[in-house]
Amino acid sequence: MRKNQFVIIGLGRFGSGIGSELIELGYEVLGIDKDEEMVDEMSSVLTHAVVADSTDEDVLRSLGVRNFDCGVIAIGDDIQASILTTILLKDLGVKKVVAKAVGELHGRVLEKIGVDRVVYPERDMGIRVAHQLVSPNLLDYIELSKDYTIAELAVPKCLCGVSLHELNPRAKFGCSIVAINKPEGIIIAPTAEDVLAEKDVLVVIGTNEQIEDFEEAIVR
Amino acid sequence: MRKNQFVIIGLGRFGSGIGSELIELGYEVLGIDKDEEMVDEMSSVLTHAVVADSTDEDVLRSLGVRNFDCGVIAIGDDIQASILTTILLKDLGVKKVVAKAVGELHGRVLEKIGVDRVVYPERDMGIRVAHQLVSPNLLDYIELSKDYTIAELAVPKCLCGVSLHELNPRAKFGCSIVAINKPEGIIIAPTAEDVLAEKDVLVVIGTNEQIEDFEEAIVR
Amino acid sequence: MRKNQFVIIGLGRFGSGIGSELIELGYEVLGIDKDEEMVDEMSSVLTHAVVADSTDEDVLRSLGVRNFDCGVIAIGDDIQASILTTILLKDLGVKKVVAKAVGELHGRVLEKIGVDRVVYPERDMGIRVAHQLVSPNLLDYIELSKDYTIAELAVPKCLCGVSLHELNPRAKFGCSIVAINKPEGIIIAPTAEDVLAEKDVLVVIGTNEQIEDFEEAIVR
Amino acid sequence: MRKNQFVIIGLGRFGSGIGSELIELGYEVLGIDKDEEMVDEMSSVLTHAVVADSTDEDVLRSLGVRNFDCGVIAIGDDIQASILTTILLKDLGVKKVVAKAVGELHGRVLEKIGVDRVVYPERDMGIRVAHQLVSPNLLDYIELSKDYTIAELAVPKCLCGVSLHELNPRAKFGCSIVAINKPEGIIIAPTAEDVLAEKDVLVVIGTNEQIEDFEEAIVR
Amino acid sequence: MRKNQFVIIGLGRFGSGIGSELIELGYEVLGIDKDEEMVDEMSSVLTHAVVADSTDEDVLRSLGVRNFDCGVIAIGDDIQASILTTILLKDLGVKKVVAKAVGELHGRVLEKIGVDRVVYPERDMGIRVAHQLVSPNLLDYIELSKDYTIAELAVPKCLCGVSLHELNPRAKFGCSIVAINKPEGIIIAPTAEDVLAEKDVLVVIGTNEQIEDFEEAIVR
Amino acid sequence: MRKNQFVIIGLGRFGSGIGSELIELGYEVLGIDKDEEMVDEMSSVLTHAVVADSTDEDVLRSLGVRNFDCGVIAIGDDIQASILTTILLKDLGVKKVVAKAVGELHGRVLEKIGVDRVVYPERDMGIRVAHQLVSPNLLDYIELSKDYTIAELAVPKCLCGVSLHELNPRAKFGCSIVAINKPEGIIIAPTAEDVLAEKDVLVVIGTNEQIEDFEEAIVR
Amino acid sequence: MRKNQFVIIGLGRFGSGIGSELIELGYEVLGIDKDEEMVDEMSSVLTHAVVADSTDEDVLRSLGVRNFDCGVIAIGDDIQASILTTILLKDLGVKKVVAKAVGELHGRVLEKIGVDRVVYPERDMGIRVAHQLVSPNLLDYIELSKDYTIAELAVPKCLCGVSLHELNPRAKFGCSIVAINKPEGIIIAPTAEDVLAEKDVLVVIGTNEQIEDFEEAIVR
Amino acid sequence: MRKNQFVIIGLGRFGSGIGSELIELGYEVLGIDKDEEMVDEMSSVLTHAVVADSTDEDVLRSLGVRNFDCGVIAIGDDIQASILTTILLKDLGVKKVVAKAVGELHGRVLEKIGVDRVVYPERDMGIRVAHQLVSPNLLDYIELSKDYTIAELAVPKCLCGVSLHELNPRAKFGCSIVAINKPEGIIIAPTAEDVLAEKDVLVVIGTNEQIEDFEEAIVR
Repeated sequence: MRKNQFVIIGLGRFGSGIGSELIELGYEVLGIDKDEEMVDEMSSVLTHAVVADSTDEDVLRSLGVRNFDCGVIAIGDDIQASILTTILLKDLGVKKVVAKAVGELHGRVLEKIGVDRVVYPERDMGIRVAHQLVSPNLLDYIELSKDYTIAELAVPKCLCGVSLHELNPRAKFGCSIVAINKPEGIIIAPTAEDVLAEKDVLVVIGTNEQIEDFEEAIVR
Repeated sequence: MRKNQFVIIGLGRFGSGIGSELIELGYEVLGIDKDEEMVDEMSSVLTHAVVADSTDEDVLRSLGVRNFDCGVIAIGDDIQASILTTILLKDLGVKKVVAKAVGELHGRVLEKIGVDRVVYPERDMGIRVAHQLVSPNLLDYIELSKDYTIAELAVPKCLCGVSLHELNPRAKFGCSIVAINKPEGIIIAPTAEDVLAEKDVLVVIGTNEQIEDFEEAIVR
Repeated sequence: MRKNQFVIIGLGRFGSGIGSELIELGYEVLGIDKDEEMVDEMSSVLTHAVVADSTDEDVLRSLGVRNFDCGVIAIGDDIQASILTTILLKDLGVKKVVAKAVGELHGRVLEKIGVDRVVYPERDMGIRVAHQLVSPNLLDYIELSKDYTIAELAVPKCLCGVSLHELNPRAKFGCSIVAINKPEGIIIAPTAEDVLAEKDVLVVIGTNEQIEDFEEAIVR
Repeated sequence: MRKNQFVIIGLGRFGSGIGSELIELGYEVLGIDKDEEMVDEMSSVLTHAVVADSTDEDVLRSLGVRNFDCGVIAIGDDIQASILTTILLKDLGVKKVVAKAVGELHGRVLEKIGVDRVVYPERDMGIRVAHQLVSPNLLDYIELSKDYTIAELAVPKCLCGVSLHELNPRAKFGCSIVAINKPEGIIIAPTAEDVLAEKDVLVVIGTNEQIEDFEEAIVR
Repeated sequence: MRKNQFVIIGLGRFGSGIGSELIELGYEVLGIDKDEEMVDEMSSVLTHAVVADSTDEDVLRSLGVRNFDCGVIAIGDDIQASILTTILLKDLGVKKVVAKAVGELHGRVLEKIGVDRVVYPERDMGIRVAHQLVSPNLLDYIELSKDYTIAELAVPKCLCGVSLHELNPRAKFGCSIVAINKPEGIIIAPTAEDVLAEKDVLVVIGTNEQIEDFEEAIVR
Repeated sequence: MRKNQFVIIGLGRFGSGIGSELIELGYEVLGIDKDEEMVDEMSSVLTHAVVADSTDEDVLRSLGVRNFDCGVIAIGDDIQASILTTILLKDLGVKKVVAKAVGELHGRVLEKIGVDRVVYPERDMGIRVAHQLVSPNLLDYIELSKDYTIAELAVPKCLCGVSLHELNPRAKFGCSIVAINKPEGIIIAPTAEDVLAEKDVLVVIGTNEQIEDFEEAIVR
Repeated sequence: MRKNQFVIIGLGRFGSGIGSELIELGYEVLGIDKDEEMVDEMSSVLTHAVVADSTDEDVLRSLGVRNFDCGVIAIGDDIQASILTTILLKDLGVKKVVAKAVGELHGRVLEKIGVDRVVYPERDMGIRVAHQLVSPNLLDYIELSKDYTIAELAVPKCLCGVSLHELNPRAKFGCSIVAINKPEGIIIAPTAEDVLAEKDVLVVIGTNEQIEDFEEAIVR
Repeated sequence: MRKNQFVIIGLGRFGSGIGSELIELGYEVLGIDKDEEMVDEMSSVLTHAVVADSTDEDVLRSLGVRNFDCGVIAIGDDIQASILTTILLKDLGVKKVVAKAVGELHGRVLEKIGVDRVVYPERDMGIRVAHQLVSPNLLDYIELSKDYTIAELAVPKCLCGVSLHELNPRAKFGCSIVAINKPEGIIIAPTAEDVLAEKDVLVVIGTNEQIEDFEEAIVR
């Protein structure tokens, strides 16, 4: 099976972040930006990087953009360029188009003209950071639904040497420990005998409230 | 216990994202920006929002910044203002300072002058989006370590009606299903009899390779 | 029957031309522009004129834009503002939205986001002027179809005193004379006895070719 | 007979609209603009297109501008360049000079220095659009005099299957139907037996009032 | 007899030079400039000075510009404003309009739209200075015709004590001494007995060549 | 005798006016300006014209500026460049330096650093034009002293056919007629029998008051 | 005796450095700058600080600048303002005028127009820093003449416990130790018995060469 | 012993002052600036000068900056570039880094990221000039401690012919004369018989107060 090919338009911090990671994951990526300096910087990272005006239909055609499986429009603050490029990519027949929006109104336009997914990188990362700020032990999390979350929690010092049996979060708070990530290796579905140590990280699943209560309890 | 209080400097998309979420989570937030328009927009959201030059020590003092538990420096592209504000917050005695960096060099300076955590919102969100692009079923994920990941995967149509017994990912791919998120409710630690339906989401834990193999298999 | 009410956004030459004519025709018109000077100039002409940022949803709401029957987006060169304003007007529920486009790509976006009619004033007027330039006797025209045209032609001096019988364009060129516009009054469906005089204007219907041949013949 | 040759100065939307149409009509056109990009874009459309400063007499001489039959000054917002170019063209002996004006005062100067025709494209198109806005069935029109108009009206659904005999606009409103433009062909001077169908377009002649009354009647 | 009244538009170095001198000569002068600072500076010198946009017909009307006998358009480098103001002054009925031109083309337009006199201050003063540079004794001069000049020449030291009889320019060079300007008073139509002294200035009339020869002779 | 050589720095309207006239008078002129366009325009007029920064001592040296007899600093509005260039020319040993000043303070600095003559072209020409405005017959004049003037006056129609005997300005007004400039030739020291004709120009010497009275009398 | 009063024009880093120190030393200082922010910052430090344009003679008069004993022109990069202000201060009769120059040519002009002392702060501090860079023990120095210097040298660790007798710089290098600056107090004209300790600083007088040799010897 | 090598980043007045002096003192200096003009000017003075962006780590590496013994960051007003360059130099392993700060906050950051010495050239030179302004005889000075100073004082006319015995500063004021710098040579440790002459300069050591009293006494 031929691997998907990606074209990324806009090589700022968001676009180059996507591009570098896609390359890392083994995919082919064409990068386009109208700024020569940015293209220079990414040309050694991406499969191919060109200086081009993405709002010029002829230019996109000559670059063969229509043959790419997925287009990412990561254009920064130039809303006009973002919109015009999007409509060109859709009209050229790129199957999947993902675009970054700088605001809610911008996002609405992108959806109306047919973007498959709109991303708000700064706002979303802001939300993520907010959660980590209020729970200093929270390393990362996935919101499974409005109520349920999987959280990755650092083990505080006061819990070193405590066994899951003693901790017993299911009984006390209702949430379950899915795994313990220890420096020496991960324990999936740990048993009551497993003992916590410094630098261990707990993976917990439960309702937001259960996890919050559990977290507050172990920090104290 | 008094709840932590936050001061956010820079009310762009990242800063206002953090601020709005902290308010949502029930915390008090002071927002500072030198741009009047941005302050106006956030003044109805945050506890308090003021127009001020955050590189002026007297201004920060008069705002009582030293009494805040945590400062977030979310200044956009003005590296100089970001650095000068950071050193002022540290010198004023703010316990925890989190700062956004626009590049690696900027991040290095921030760490050297004592920032507790450096965030690269656009780059990090780029990496996250890249993963979702290459695995269309991947909804979200947590990197537990260099090798292990928890992934949230949408159930493809072809798996509707299949039981976990039939699927048996542990035997076939080595990864475990931690939970099934169904529209009607979440099943933690599902059993072999549980049957998948459309719109179900699987929460899987395993090595990156195991999850990748599993994902490719179920998509086909 | 309540008369339609119009809101015009952008009070440059095109927008103020529409606005003035609508007032002339007896309609109520609200004019919006972000430029104070332009609003000042039109405030004595239109029913109401306000300085406002049309890309701000709250502003449009507070102006009651949703209650207008027809919105004209006559924003000059700021494609971004044109697009964002358009989507806001559509979302607010304005029944008919007409928008000016500065180029073909801009026009495509406007159509995609639901504009009822896209106008290209400069280009269209250019085409109209071109026709008048090549046929100095051509005063105005309507393109009925790709082939058929109604043309308003000034009568050249050499035809003064000639009767329609002598001229006989139907027999000689295939086109018909629909009316003769004389300084003293219009003659609709003129007869063969009607005689041409200086300053008369002929209204001719026929294929482009027929009219062209006829025009060339009478000029000679 | 040698065909007229045109020189167009200013290749913006208005100038390029004229130029493209003149080429379409089979004429030779020289385009001049000081902006390289605009010249590039039009160089494949026009007979010849050059980058030049039209306010430099030597440049216009070397381009042989004096040999053109008609000069169109379509310079956008630079009133000074528009005026200086105009006086040069007149002094070089170009027989007919048409110029675009951006305002009434600009137009007055152009007339004083000898322009043969002043055009206000945006304002005039604004007036035209205003008429179409208030009469949704009005497709196009020619103002024959202060009182008389020829109008092109779309046939509303409710008139499908109606014969001209039944409609009888002459008796009821005083205006005459000059032609019916049907998808399958045009009927000039239609008879009372002709029956209207969807997508037909009526060409009507009469006083403004007669046509307005007729239009209101058929829409209801 | 009512004294003439002047309106000067543009209060730069040229306009304020004219204005100050006219006041000095006992006339009433209204000064207009769009720059507040310049108006402030001249408001204590001129009869009246106002900040106004001279290309706005309503403004000129409300200032009663039509009642002035003479308008001086001394607008610096803004050719457009110079031309538009000129046409307004002429149309308002100002009897005499004098305008400064910055170049030959600008001057041509001004003449075409009806200016009574075009002045090129910098160029003309340049010519005057050039003459003084090549003849160090030449203080000032009037070009009476292409051939004849009246020149004001400083008396060089070597001529002190010389009588006009000895000097005899009429016999030797063909030019006549019209007057001797002595510190103690002027001698009109001097006689052969008059003797030159240091600081005397000769007023000489003759052909350019005669004066040149005379000047070279006395300098040696 | 070797003719003087001139270097002119600043080729704007004043500088190029001087330069052109000096060339006309048969002198060698080197023109210097930092603006390429201006140098291009004057390079076909002056002996030599170069693009150079006149505030760079090495540049002036390499151009051999020290060998010129006279330097004219005609730099427009850049007071700093004017002053720095002046000091360089003086230090390089140019014998005579003439400089244009844009204001009185600028002039004072120029004098202090050793300029031989300061010129205020716009202000001086303004004064000259003011005189001509108040006396419409005044063509040109030389101010001999605070009291005495030589004036060139156009002969008004009403004086045609009048002899000097009848006119007798000396007796009536105290001023003398030095010459009559007739289209057919000049009459120096005219006699009482000489008769005035249309298009004649009188050259009159006298006090300002005498000439004013005389002028008013002949105009009436 | 009335203490001298100072006026400082230009309140940048150099000007405010002078001003603060003069206040520290007990003098009265008036600060002038055209930048409001800078004046605000210094208004609590200086006796008086005003926002004013120092190139406006009337302004300087109204501030009573002529009554100050000494004027410091510390204007940053605006050479024109620096020169014009200087000439005004001299003409107003300020006895002593010190001015900062940004380059050698600027300095030459300042001297020509009568400045009493020209200072080149950045260049001079650069020279001073260069000396300290090459001799790491050199703390400060005074150049007494082209040959002789007084230097302040840190005592290196290796000399701790050494007596002046042992060190004997006069015999070995020709230079004399004028004083030993010890943490506990200064010893002027130390004797041979005095012993060096860590943190002592030597004050040495001698030729540049002698001090260099001495310094190299004690570092080794 | 290999001599130290210096790299100077920023070739403005401060940086070029350091560089020129280091070259004068016999050291090798590499100069770096992003401004081509400044590099051109210094390329004939320094060992090597290159145009480069000092905030680009790769550029600094390729220039071998890590091999230099001492780096001087003399970047003018661009605080960001100053900080980023500093951290790069420290990370590359340059042993000694000296940096110029434009303000106190900038200086604090530089110290935090590890600069060995922060210099404030304009402020420090301002302080130095202030001392000289208040004591007109003070030529230069070294502050030995908070209390003690060595001062270089010009001998006033009234002291000519006075012997040190008569002057006796030690007895009268407590300060000592370390040396007399005479035009014909320096006298170190002068005796009571030495007599002062015009143009002599005294080198005095003592407390600030003693020197001040002494200075005031001798001026009177």
